[in-house]
Amino acid sequence: MSEADFKYIIDTFFTLFSMVLIIFMVPGFAMLEAGLVRTKNVSAVLTVNTMIYAVASLTFLLVGYTVAFGSWENTSMSIWAAFLFQMAFVGKTVNIMSGGVSERVKIIPLMIFTVIMGGVIYPLIVNVSWGADMLSGTMLDIDMYDLAGSTVIHSTGGWALLAAILVVGPRKDRYKNGQIRVIPASNIPLVTLGALLLWIGWFGFNGGSVGSISSIENANSVAKTIMNTNTAGLAGAIIAAIIMYVRYKLLDITMILNGALGGLVAITAGPDLYDVYTPILIGAIGGALVIFAIPVFDKFKLDDPVGALSVHLVNGIWGTLAVGIFVDNVSIMAQLKGIVVIGIFAFVSSYITIYIINIFIKFRAEDDIQVEGLDINEVGVEAYPEFKRAI
Amino acid sequence: MSEADFKYIIDTFFTLFSMVLIIFMVPGFAMLEAGLVRTKNVSAVLTVNTMIYAVASLTFLLVGYTVAFGSWENTSMSIWAAFLFQMAFVGKTVNIMSGGVSERVKIIPLMIFTVIMGGVIYPLIVNVSWGADMLSGTMLDIDMYDLAGSTVIHSTGGWALLAAILVVGPRKDRYKNGQIRVIPASNIPLVTLGALLLWIGWFGFNGGSVGSISSIENANSVAKTIMNTNTAGLAGAIIAAIIMYVRYKLLDITMILNGALGGLVAITAGPDLYDVYTPILIGAIGGALVIFAIPVFDKFKLDDPVGALSVHLVNGIWGTLAVGIFVDNVSIMAQLKGIVVIGIFAFVSSYITIYIINIFIKFRAEDDIQVEGLDINEVGVEAYPEFKRAI
Amino acid sequence: MSEADFKYIIDTFFTLFSMVLIIFMVPGFAMLEAGLVRTKNVSAVLTVNTMIYAVASLTFLLVGYTVAFGSWENTSMSIWAAFLFQMAFVGKTVNIMSGGVSERVKIIPLMIFTVIMGGVIYPLIVNVSWGADMLSGTMLDIDMYDLAGSTVIHSTGGWALLAAILVVGPRKDRYKNGQIRVIPASNIPLVTLGALLLWIGWFGFNGGSVGSISSIENANSVAKTIMNTNTAGLAGAIIAAIIMYVRYKLLDITMILNGALGGLVAITAGPDLYDVYTPILIGAIGGALVIFAIPVFDKFKLDDPVGALSVHLVNGIWGTLAVGIFVDNVSIMAQLKGIVVIGIFAFVSSYITIYIINIFIKFRAEDDIQVEGLDINEVGVEAYPEFKRAI
Repeated sequence: MSEADFKYIIDTFFTLFSMVLIIFMVPGFAMLEAGLVRTKNVSAVLTVNTMIYAVASLTFLLVGYTVAFGSWENTSMSIWAAFLFQMAFVGKTVNIMSGGVSERVKIIPLMIFTVIMGGVIYPLIVNVSWGADMLSGTMLDIDMYDLAGSTVIHSTGGWALLAAILVVGPRKDRYKNGQIRVIPASNIPLVTLGALLLWIGWFGFNGGSVGSISSIENANSVAKTIMNTNTAGLAGAIIAAIIMYVRYKLLDITMILNGALGGLVAITAGPDLYDVYTPILIGAIGGALVIFAIPVFDKFKLDDPVGALSVHLVNGIWGTLAVGIFVDNVSIMAQLKGIVVIGIFAFVSSYITIYIINIFIKFRAEDDIQVEGLDINEVGVEAYPEFKRAI
Repeated sequence: MSEADFKYIIDTFFTLFSMVLIIFMVPGFAMLEAGLVRTKNVSAVLTVNTMIYAVASLTFLLVGYTVAFGSWENTSMSIWAAFLFQMAFVGKTVNIMSGGVSERVKIIPLMIFTVIMGGVIYPLIVNVSWGADMLSGTMLDIDMYDLAGSTVIHSTGGWALLAAILVVGPRKDRYKNGQIRVIPASNIPLVTLGALLLWIGWFGFNGGSVGSISSIENANSVAKTIMNTNTAGLAGAIIAAIIMYVRYKLLDITMILNGALGGLVAITAGPDLYDVYTPILIGAIGGALVIFAIPVFDKFKLDDPVGALSVHLVNGIWGTLAVGIFVDNVSIMAQLKGIVVIGIFAFVSSYITIYIINIFIKFRAEDDIQVEGLDINEVGVEAYPEFKRAI
Repeated sequence: MSEADFKYIIDTFFTLFSMVLIIFMVPGFAMLEAGLVRTKNVSAVLTVNTMIYAVASLTFLLVGYTVAFGSWENTSMSIWAAFLFQMAFVGKTVNIMSGGVSERVKIIPLMIFTVIMGGVIYPLIVNVSWGADMLSGTMLDIDMYDLAGSTVIHSTGGWALLAAILVVGPRKDRYKNGQIRVIPASNIPLVTLGALLLWIGWFGFNGGSVGSISSIENANSVAKTIMNTNTAGLAGAIIAAIIMYVRYKLLDITMILNGALGGLVAITAGPDLYDVYTPILIGAIGGALVIFAIPVFDKFKLDDPVGALSVHLVNGIWGTLAVGIFVDNVSIMAQLKGIVVIGIFAFVSSYITIYIINIFIKFRAEDDIQVEGLDINEVGVEAYPEFKRAI
C-alpha cells in the first residue's frame, strides 16, 4: 500500500470520527437550551434545534458546499467525509442565533432564515476564509488565522443573533419599569448535560480542523489541539467559579458552564499554535469575559436567555485576537481585519435577511402566545404535561 | 508491516469505533421510550431497555453468534471486534418490539422472549442473510441486498412487535367507546435526546456494516454510507415537519423525530449504493410513511405508544424495496423475496414464542396494575417521586 | 512511511478515541449522581461534578502528570495524547468520593481536596503502579497486575470516600432512632442515562489502557478487553436483577445499574487476560457483591447515597484479587500486596488531608442547610424551579 493510500484511509476515518463528535453538539445545544428556558417553551426550543440541523444541513448539501468550496473534489481524503465534516459545522451558526432569541421567536421564519444562512451567508464566509477564497487578491482578502472558527462560526452566529435581537426585541416583560426580571433556568441537569456534550463535541470540532492525522507532525498537532481546547474549557469554568464565589459566595453552575463554553470559543481560533500553558490564560480571560459581558448586554436591553452573545460573539472576537497577541508569526492586524470584514458582512447580511423575512412573516410571537408559551402554539406538544407547575 | 496487517489493525479499530456508536443506541432507545410513556411507567421502560441489552447480548455470546455465523473465526479483523459489532445489533430487535408494547407488558415474560429472540430467532435470520447461509442452494435462498438491516433488524423487530400486540392487546382504555384516547408523551427533552442518540448510533450501524475502511474504495464507501444515512434522516424530519405544518399549523416534535427515524430505517438497506441525492427521496418517503401509517395502525386498534410499527416495520419494508427500485443491479424480486421470507419467519416464530410464553406467564399487566403504573408493581421504584403530578 | 511512524499515528488516534470515550464519563457521573439525590441537592451535585473535572484536570496538567510519570516524554505516540488519556482518569477518583458524600458536603473544601488528590495522592499511586515507579527495588515495590485501575482508580476513590464519610458523618436524619430512612432517587431517567454513559466510557477506559492498537496482537487485545469489559457489565446487571427478583419480586433498576457498574469495576484489573467466559463469573460476583454490600455499609452507618463504596471499593478489591485467582501467571500475593499498600496509602493520606482541611473549613453542611438543600445555599440555582414538589 502506498503512503498516499494510507494517508487517505486514515484521514477519512479520522475526519468521520471528528464529524461524529461534532454531531453530539446537536443534542448538546438542544439540551443546553431546553434546560435554560421556561418549561412552557421547551418543546419549541427542541423543535428549533432539530429542524435547524435538518434544514441547514440539507441546504448545505444542495447549495452551500458548492458556494463555499467551488467544487466537490478532495484528493487527500474521501470527499464525502470532507463534506460531512463541513456540514457538521453549518447548523452551529444558526444554533447560536436561535438560542439567544428563544422564548419569543416563531419557528417558520427562523427556518427561512436557516435556509439563507446555510445556503448563502455562512458558505460565503467560509469561501473567503477556508474555502475557494473569492476575495483573494482583492483589498478585502482575509488572511487571518482561525483554525476552527472563533470568527467564522462563533462570531458569525453571534452577529446573526445581535441582528435578530435588534429586529425581534426582548421577551415580554423582561425589561419592565427599568428593572431586569430574572427568569430562572427550568432544568439544570439538562443544561449540564448539554454543555458537557458541547465540550466533547469541541474535541472533534477543533481536532478535526487540523485536517489530517496521518503524519507524525499532524498527529502531534491534533493531540495538542484537543489538549489545548480542553485546557481552555477547564480554565474558563474555574475562573467563572472563582468570580461567582468572590462576588456572591455561590457557585452558580449555569455561569460555570457558560464560562467553560466561553473558554472553548476563545481557544478555537488557534489551539494548535499555543504551548500548553497559554490556553489557561486565554480560557480564563474567555470565562471572565462571559461573566462580565452578560450584565452589559442586559443593560442595553439585548435580551439573550442563554448568554450566547457573551459566549460566542465576545469570545469569538477575543479568541481571534488572542492568536495575534500570543503567536509570533500571526499579525494582529490580519486578525482584526478578519474580525471586522466578516463581522460587518455577517451582521449586515443577517440583519437585512431577518428584516425582509420579518416584513412577510413576523418573527416575534405575540404577547399572549409568549405568556401561554410557544409549546402549545407552535409545536402542539407540551414538554412535561404530567408535571404540576410551581410557577 | 504487511498490507494485510495494516488492514487488520485499521478494520479492527474501525469496527470498535462503529460498535461504540451503536451502543449509544442503548441510552438512545431508553431515553426515547422513557420520554414517550407516562411517568408511572418510566422506570419499567428503563428497566426493560437495560435488561434487554444485558440479556440479548449475553445470549448472543453464549448461543446466538454460533447460530448465526457457524464458527468463531475472522481473518480480516479481530474476531472479538467482529463479535462486538454483531452483538451490538441483537438487542435492537427486541428494543423495537418492547417499545411498542410499553405501558402494559410485564418484564419477566419479555426477558424470556429476549432469550429466544437473541439466541434463536434473530441469529437464524442473520444466518440466512449475512451469516453462514444455511438456505444457500435451496428454493428459499435469500439474496436480497440489505446492507445494515432494514429487513434483518428493523422489520424483524417490527414483525415481533406486531405478534406481541396481537397477543397482548392495547393499553387499558386506549380504545374505548369507539374513540382513540390520546396519551401524551411525558418528557419531550428525553424523547429528543433519545432520538438524536439513535441518529448518531446509526452512523456506526450503517457505516460499520460496510465491513472495512482499509482501502480507498472502502473508505469512500463508508463515508458515503454515513453521508447518505444522515441525508435520509434530514429528509425524513423535514417532510414530517412540512406535513404536520400543512395539516395543523403545528410542528409536532415527536412526529418530526419519528419522521427522521423513519428516514433512517428506510436508507439502511442500501446507503452505500445510492448517489448523494436519492437518499433525500427515500428518506422523505420514509418520513411521510411514518406520519400516514401511525393513524392506520390505530384504526386497527394496534396500540403502539412509540410508533415503532410505522418507523421500523413499514420503513424496513420500504427501505428494502427501495434498493430494488433505485439500484440497477439489484433485483426488486430478490428484495421482495427477502422481505416476505424473513417477514413470515419473524412473525410466525415470534407469535408462537410469545403465545407459548403467555400460556405460562401472562405478558399483559392486569388492569389495576396498568392504572397504578408498572413502576410501582414491577420495578418498585418511581421515576420521579418528588415531582407532583398534574394528571 | 516507516512502521514506527505508522504505529505512532495509529496509537495517537486510538488514544484520542479512548480519551474521548472516557470524557463521556463526566456527564455519566454527573447524570447518575444528579438522578440519585433529592431535587434540592441536584444543582450542587452537578456543580461538584463539573468542578471536579475542571480542578482535577488542571492540577494534573500543572503538577500531577510530572509527579506520576517523572517526565513529559513518550516516543510511541504523541505525548499530548498520552497526557490526555491519563488526565481523563484523574477526576474519576474524586467523582467516586464526592458521589458518596452527596447531599451533606460543601463544595469549597471538596475542591481543596480535589487539588490534593489530583496533584499529589492519585499521582503518587500512579507513580508506584503504572508510572515512574519510585518504590522499585524497595520492600514496598508493587508488581500487581491492574490494567485499567480496579485498585489504582476505583479502590483509591473508594478509600478516599470511606475517609470522607468517617470525617463528615451521615446525612441529617438518615439514621434516626435505630432506623434507616430510605431516601428515594429523584430522577430515574438521569440515573439510567448516567450509568449507560459510564458503561460506554469504560470501553475507552479499559480498551485504551492496553496502550496500543498498532499490531495484530494489540488489536486483538484491545478488542478482547472491550468485549470482556462489556460482558462483565452484562453479567453484573443480570445477577442483580435475579437477586432483586428472587427477594422482592421487583426489578429495582437502580440496583440493576449498580450491579452492572460493579461488574465493570471488577473486570477492570485484567480484562485482557481472561478468556471470554470468565468475565461472566467475575461480573456476576461483582454485581452480587454490590447488592450484598449496600446494606452492610448502612448497618455501620456509613451513609453513601449512590452506593459508591459497594461499587468501587468492594469491587475494586474483588477485581484486583480476581486476576490473581483466575490468571495463571499472576501471583495472588502480589495482587494482595498492591491492594493493601495502595489501600493504606490512599485511605491514610485522604483521611489526613480531609481531617486537616476540615479544621479550617468544615466539610459538613449545617443541619438547616441540609434541610433546605444545598442548591439554594451553595449554588444559588434550583435544579427544577418550575416543578411543584410532591415531598
